Formats: sequence, C-alpha cells, structure tokens
Amino acid sequence: MTHAISPLAMPFPAMPAIAGAAPRIARAHYKAWDRCDLTYVELDEGTSVAGVFTRNICCSSEVELGRQNVAQGHARALIVNAGNSNAFTGYRGREAVEQIMDQVATHLGCAKEQVFVSSTGVIGVPLPKDKARAGVEAALAATPCSWEDAANTIGTTDTFAKGATATAIVGGKTVAFSAIIKGSGMIAPDMATMLGYIFTDAAIAPAFLQKLLSRAADETFNCITVDSDTSTSDTILAFATGKAGNDVLTDEDSAGADAFAAALADICRQLAHLVVKDGEGAQKFIAVTVSGAVSDASARKVGLAIANSPLVKTAIAGQDANWGRIVMAVGKAGEPADRDRLSIGFGGIWAARNGQPLADYDEAPVAAHLEGQEIDITVDLGLGEGRATVWTCDLTHGYISINADYRS
Amino acid sequence: MTHAISPLAMPFPAMPAIAGAAPRIARAHYKAWDRCDLTYVELDEGTSVAGVFTRNICCSSEVELGRQNVAQGHARALIVNAGNSNAFTGYRGREAVEQIMDQVATHLGCAKEQVFVSSTGVIGVPLPKDKARAGVEAALAATPCSWEDAANTIGTTDTFAKGATATAIVGGKTVAFSAIIKGSGMIAPDMATMLGYIFTDAAIAPAFLQKLLSRAADETFNCITVDSDTSTSDTILAFATGKAGNDVLTDEDSAGADAFAAALADICRQLAHLVVKDGEGAQKFIAVTVSGAVSDASARKVGLAIANSPLVKTAIAGQDANWGRIVMAVGKAGEPADRDRLSIGFGGIWAARNGQPLADYDEAPVAAHLEGQEIDITVDLGLGEGRATVWTCDLTHGYISINADYRS
Repeated sequence: MTHAISPLAMPFPAMPAIAGAAPRIARAHYKAWDRCDLTYVELDEGTSVAGVFTRNICCSSEVELGRQNVAQGHARALIVNAGNSNAFTGYRGREAVEQIMDQVATHLGCAKEQVFVSSTGVIGVPLPKDKARAGVEAALAATPCSWEDAANTIGTTDTFAKGATATAIVGGKTVAFSAIIKGSGMIAPDMATMLGYIFTDAAIAPAFLQKLLSRAADETFNCITVDSDTSTSDTILAFATGKAGNDVLTDEDSAGADAFAAALADICRQLAHLVVKDGEGAQKFIAVTVSGAVSDASARKVGLAIANSPLVKTAIAGQDANWGRIVMAVGKAGEPADRDRLSIGFGGIWAARNGQPLADYDEAPVAAHLEGQEIDITVDLGLGEGRATVWTCDLTHGYISINADYRS
Repeated sequence: MTHAISPLAMPFPAMPAIAGAAPRIARAHYKAWDRCDLTYVELDEGTSVAGVFTRNICCSSEVELGRQNVAQGHARALIVNAGNSNAFTGYRGREAVEQIMDQVATHLGCAKEQVFVSSTGVIGVPLPKDKARAGVEAALAATPCSWEDAANTIGTTDTFAKGATATAIVGGKTVAFSAIIKGSGMIAPDMATMLGYIFTDAAIAPAFLQKLLSRAADETFNCITVDSDTSTSDTILAFATGKAGNDVLTDEDSAGADAFAAALADICRQLAHLVVKDGEGAQKFIAVTVSGAVSDASARKVGLAIANSPLVKTAIAGQDANWGRIVMAVGKAGEPADRDRLSIGFGGIWAARNGQPLADYDEAPVAAHLEGQEIDITVDLGLGEGRATVWTCDLTHGYISINADYRS
C-alpha cells in the first residue's frame, strides 16, 4: 500500500458471515514488512469448489495444482500467501506448495487435494518453506477475523481493500455471498496478480457451480483489462458451504438456480470492476460497449482491442473525444468491420455515424461527460446482433511511475 | 515538430540522387502552419512499383487505391499530403484522392493508376480539394529539392527527418537506394502514421520487386512496435526507375538479385529502426531476440508479446532487469513455451536459465547494460530452431504526455 489510494476506490461493504467459512490471518514474514501476509479460510465438510485460472502458459505451481484439484469438487481450506508469487521457481516452488497442503490436510484430517493454495508477489524466488510452515501454524491457531482483514491480507500493491456481497432467494431460502479480491494493474506478475475468492452458504453441486462460475467469469473477469498483461497466477475460486438449507442446486432446472446464477454473476461483475478501479494509475473507469458485431465473441474482441489501445486510453486520460483512435482500434482488432457502417459515441452521444463525423455534432456535452470519472464509449459496427461490454481504465503518468520506478 | 527531439535521433545521411526520381515540395496549407506539407516525386517512364500497406480494416481511400493500383506494377508519380490523413471521410475523401490522381496524370500524360497518393494527419476531415489542387499545382511547378527537404515535408509529429541509403553491385553495375520515412509512435492515426518511400535506379520487374519488398517488410516493418497500435494509413512503397543500366532483375536467378535483395532488406531495416528511434517518448531502443521457438513465426509472436507488454517496456524505462515480466509476456503470447526450459538474458548475460534464476547471476554488468540507450533482450524457449528479432522502445512519461495532452 505504498501508492496513493485510487481516486476510484470504493468503501469496503458490510459483509455477512458465511456459515461454514471462517477466515483467519497471520504473519509469515514473507517480506520485511509489518503486516499480516498469510490468509487461511477454513471450510466445513461438504463445501463445493469451482475455479477459473490464468491462461498464461508460464503459470505457477499453485495454479497447476489448483486446476488439477478443483476437478474433485470439494474443499476444506484456502491458503493465500502475499509477498511471494512462487512463480518460475521450479521444483522447489512446488515442494513449498505441497508442504502447505500436507500441513493443513493433516491438521484438518482431510485429503490433501481439498486444500487450495494461492501466492502473489515477487517472481522467481521459491516460497521459503520455514516461513510458510510457521505462518500456517500461526494462522491455524488464530481466532477468526473479518472479511475486510482477509481482503487487506491478500493485497499487495492494492491501494484499497476490495469486497463484494450479494444475496439470493433459492428455493425459499436466503443464500448469502461474501467475496474478496486483490489486483491492480492487470496484471504485474511481480505483485499485482488478480486473486479472487467467493464464499456462499448455498448448497450446490460442484459441477454446476463450475459451470456457472465459468460462464460468469467469461462475461466479467475475462472482459476487464488494465494493460493487456496477464499474470502467471490469476485465480478465482468459488466455495459453497451448503449451510443455507436450500435443496442442492444441480442444474438449470433446480428451484432457484436462476437467482443463484444471477447473484453469482453480480458478485463477479462487482469484483472485476473493483480490480479495474484499482488499476495502476487509473483516474477514470471506462466501459466500452460494442454492438452490431457479427457475434458476441467478435464484439468482445473489438471491445478489448479498444480497451487495450494505449492511444485510446491516453486520449481518455486527456479527456479527449478522439474517435479517430477508436476507429483505428476497431480496424486493428482483426474482426469483421466496415468503415462506412461504423458509429462511435461517448456518454450516449454519437460523434460519428455510418463512417462519417456528424455534421451537427455538439462536443460540449461529450466534453462534460469526459470530465467525469465513469466514461462510456459506445461503438456500433452495423453488421449484426453481436454485443459485448468490456471495462478498463485510462493510461496515465501514474501507471508509468508505478511500473517504471518500481524495482523487483 | 512541437516535441523535443528524440534522444535516439540519427543525423540525416548524405543521400545520392536517384536518376529518374525528382522530389519537389510545396505548401498546401492543410493546417495553419508555416511549412511545406505536400511532397511530389516525379518518376520517369518505366519505373516499377511495389507496395505494402496497413492491415487495419478501417483504412483510408489512399490505401485502398494504392493497394489496387500497385498491381499494375508501374508508377509515374507520388504525392504525399501531411496534416490531414483523409481517413474515415467516406466518399468525399475518396473524391479528393481521385482529383489529385487526375490532376497529376493529366500533367504527365500518364494513366491515373500510375499516380500514388498518401495522406497523414488529422482523421475524419475530408482532404480539402481546393487546397490539394493549389498545392499540387505549386509542386508541379517547383524546382527539385533534396531528399532531406522531402523527408521533413512528409513528417508530422516526427522529431527528426529520417532517411536511409544503400548501394549494391548488380550485374556489374552499381545501383543506389535513397529512402525516406515518417512515423513516430506506432502508430497514432491522427498524426503519426508510418509512411515510407524507397527509390532506386535499379532495373527490376514489378512482380519481383513486390516479392522482395514483401519479404523484407516481413522481417523489418512487421517486426517493430511502439505501442501495438496500427494506423489506418501505413504505407511503404518502393520505386525502381531502371536507370542504373543493369539487366532487368526478374527473379532469384537474375545476376545480382541476391545483392539487390540484401540492400533492399538493409534499407527496410534502417527505416524501421528510425521509426522506433522516434517512438513517442522513447528513451531506449530495445531489440528482443527470441530463439528456440517451434518456428520463426512463433518466435516473432513471442517477441511481439514481449515488445508490446507495457510492463516490460516500463521496466526497461526504469532500467530494471525485471525478467519476471518477460516470463509473463512469454506466457501470454499463446505460443508453445515451457516454463522449465525458458532462459532470459540482458545484454548477452543470462539472468535465468531453464526456468530458474541463475544462482551466480551477477547483476552489475546487466545494470550497466540497462543504463545504455540500446538494450538487448534475449529469450531462449529451448524447444526448437525458430528465431526472430523484433524492435521496440521503452514506455515513458513522454508517451503519456504526447498522447494524453494532445487534442485532436
């Protein structure tokens, strides 16, 4: 937390306790800092788990093991190490993860595969086993803490603690969600990996939870970008303890499945937006909505080309309704587009329609919109029914300062 | 030329006259500025032409017509407008280009298809026909100028005039190349489009010139990146007047074809490097060499993922040997890679080998290398024989200042 708090920071919400999920924190001293850096969440027996992981090929052992173990569908514990990503550390890094899994599994008397580990921080330095062992021991003995404490403990370069909550009525029972996430700058492998954890007391079968999480992630976490870089460790895990008393959700036809899916998607969207709002150097939150594409997938690619364009992002930083740069970004996306059908707007006002600047374009309301913190860019390709929204932040001097002045 | 001259600027070389190619410049007053902004190069009959153009789908009429007309293989004139890109201007923009082609073709008594037009500058404003007509008329009546004058006249946000020269012995005759290019920041559609023109007195068949230009461009212009953005107007044209007296080169078996191809590739490499050296905000010129890939194409994709990564580029700006960010960029490239075979070096010194940091890694010489202006990053994937080199510059506060503070 060495950088100034993001101007887009959100207050930490009042988060409900989730029956069957108890967070604890401890000091593992992974770095020479005076803070908790190890988070432990104990989960009651019968907890379902689902996960989505980075597509970065050079992923960490934590990701490899997590992806492998999520397949059996059940979880008893989560451990998150902050300050050392343990990525690019070969067999020594893997041994450290296995040690943590063994230690927690022995304590709980559960299968090792039910212990999930994440790490975030410096790359290339194997997680020190002695510090990990002592830190886990301290966490196991600690008293439960708040979700806000846990959110602060998983953070690294984050400038504010990030949490989201939701409820849904599922088969007549109220189920609750509490979720925390860390990440800023999408995504520096050194320190700014995105790690998100969703806890709910709903009863849901692991395979169905996985299906709903994957679908929600596709429209939320996979639609945000800060700088087009993807971490070696990005992880989102959802844990469902089953304590809410609803009949177990098994598929789309289960009573309340729609309500659960909507709440899960809402939680994912909230978490994704929080990461963008802590984007390195971010001054503005930008939503790019693309319609009229040949498919939703095509719309998302065009949206990401716009959201990843340094020229678009610097234009927004400069409060410049520079639709020429958006034309350029559409054109380089490699998706079907027709210059003469393209329309571009800001804040709900068209600046160009059907390939030409509007003759009566009134720049004043657009300029006022661009002075705000929440910017809407609308692009209509005029070709089909495909649409998507992606989110990003502007590119500012703050990004350069954070990333060029930082030493590993 | 409102920005400070790039610290990587190169002096304009002594450039030979090319028999059969005569540059002239004039003031078309496309903007309210006190400078020449229209360049005309008259080419003698029998000049072969070849071209490579932007892949951006939202390209300008100039690019559409140029791509179409290069197919007939012959050129009599080149016109370059600076200050207005004429992109995204619909039929009115196209009419302006056709007017210029007609005007010059009538003057020379040649086919309209042999007149090539480029424009660079503000997007979305149709090129004013009256200014274009008067400017062309002035250029047709002007006395020939130097290549340096022409290089300055095609420039927009460029901070220095860029030229390159080469000679080759082809079938016992000396052939000369003189070439100019503009571009800085790869590539802002507003002002910083890359436009390059190569003139040689060699005799070469159009189809063979196209083949050699496409091949050279693939290893030079297509291997540079400043900010991953591509212009709607990027154009490279090669003109061969045939005055050198060599036997016409028709294919690889022609006497001197190898020497000509090598000189053309050298010219393209020089021009490409000059654009990177005028990259917006550039303080360092970075060469990324990837070896051990499964193919050359795969190596280039990995190289471009590294060269386009904001986190890698800011690390180099900060003189930080942050190989973790390079691991991340390799992993996100989507090409075959194996974390445990990956080696990364700076300035010829390995920092990590086979997936692990070197135990005896001496950071001092690497730190010294990173303080220089020319940075070498070496990545070995350890999988195959594929290799490629790509070039980029660092990402600095200067880039943000130029692009966020500029108003269209």
